[in-house]
Amino acid sequence: MIARKELQIDTKGRGTYDLSADVQQLVSASGIKTGMCHIFICHTSASLMLCENADPDVMRDLETFMSRITPDGDPAYTHTAEGPDDMSAHVRSILTHSDLNLPVSGGRCALGTWQGVFLWEHRHAPHSRRVIVTVQGD
Amino acid sequence: MIARKELQIDTKGRGTYDLSADVQQLVSASGIKTGMCHIFICHTSASLMLCENADPDVMRDLETFMSRITPDGDPAYTHTAEGPDDMSAHVRSILTHSDLNLPVSGGRCALGTWQGVFLWEHRHAPHSRRVIVTVQGD
Amino acid sequence: MIARKELQIDTKGRGTYDLSADVQQLVSASGIKTGMCHIFICHTSASLMLCENADPDVMRDLETFMSRITPDGDPAYTHTAEGPDDMSAHVRSILTHSDLNLPVSGGRCALGTWQGVFLWEHRHAPHSRRVIVTVQGD
Repeated sequence: MIARKELQIDTKGRGTYDLSADVQQLVSASGIKTGMCHIFICHTSASLMLCENADPDVMRDLETFMSRITPDGDPAYTHTAEGPDDMSAHVRSILTHSDLNLPVSGGRCALGTWQGVFLWEHRHAPHSRRVIVTVQGD
Repeated sequence: MIARKELQIDTKGRGTYDLSADVQQLVSASGIKTGMCHIFICHTSASLMLCENADPDVMRDLETFMSRITPDGDPAYTHTAEGPDDMSAHVRSILTHSDLNLPVSGGRCALGTWQGVFLWEHRHAPHSRRVIVTVQGD
Repeated sequence: MIARKELQIDTKGRGTYDLSADVQQLVSASGIKTGMCHIFICHTSASLMLCENADPDVMRDLETFMSRITPDGDPAYTHTAEGPDDMSAHVRSILTHSDLNLPVSGGRCALGTWQGVFLWEHRHAPHSRRVIVTVQGD
């Protein structure tokens, strides 16, 4: 059995967006009890990650980390057609994930207590992001 | 056909733990000959990776690399509730992997000669880590 | 339904190689319309990534980025048996991906407009790389 749905996430610019509730709802609606849930983002300047879901400081610190290793407007970058956050957004994306695959058990993604599914928008401007969620199993 | 098993890995603190034999044994026990093996860690301060399995120097050098780009006790980090290795552990986790998906062929994960499946514990204190292994196929 | 094929990619040394057309062709040949396409590289010094597929500057800038955070010949590295690009290749690999999982829809990988599937060879010498592509679905 396979259920697929596309989410549209309208971001307000750089930052993280918790998709956990949306994803759990799609798994629940699929009726699938045991299997896998796959999450895919169709972009190269926004990405996915599993991360600590309780303390907003974590997201601020991740931002600090990325700003340091791949700063916007780095003079070494040549791909700047869309501005100083163009290339840094691609680097941030390849360092994180375009797809996540999660076990489904008892009709829910079997996430750990502190694990949340996040979309990370790497561009400063608001963007509309497409995320494809596929649930497979019995 | 789907077979699922949870491993409990009791770590002795920061370092890498080779799960390859455990994973191959679960695949073998499942009776599945062709399909996929998915490995998932239910934590945000320990992660998974495929890496060179022969020379322990590789693991030491990976540790050197991570200690440099995201040092424990970095004064820029604000998420320090669990100590100086709290935020660095989250950064190390998002830079590596929470899930791995491996092809199963001939009743085994089709790993390359030098590929091993490793759990990377990023906290200094010993932790008990849950890893969910799902084998799917025929 | 499961279709599996192994690609052999003969690289000319460090650089990125666009596998998108090869992968799409395998999906098309499988006859599978809806499901998943999994791509796996059997090596620890070459990796996979989804990245911007239009401007070659992106690949040059990614190279610049990696050369900076994990330079060849870093004196801190001890795993140097195969030369100054041995350990840096492993670090580059763990920071990117050994496997990618893509939704298949309408008989094609549902990639975004600017998403390409790339093999990233991290060694300077030419290598022959094995990539296992698995298509599953209906």
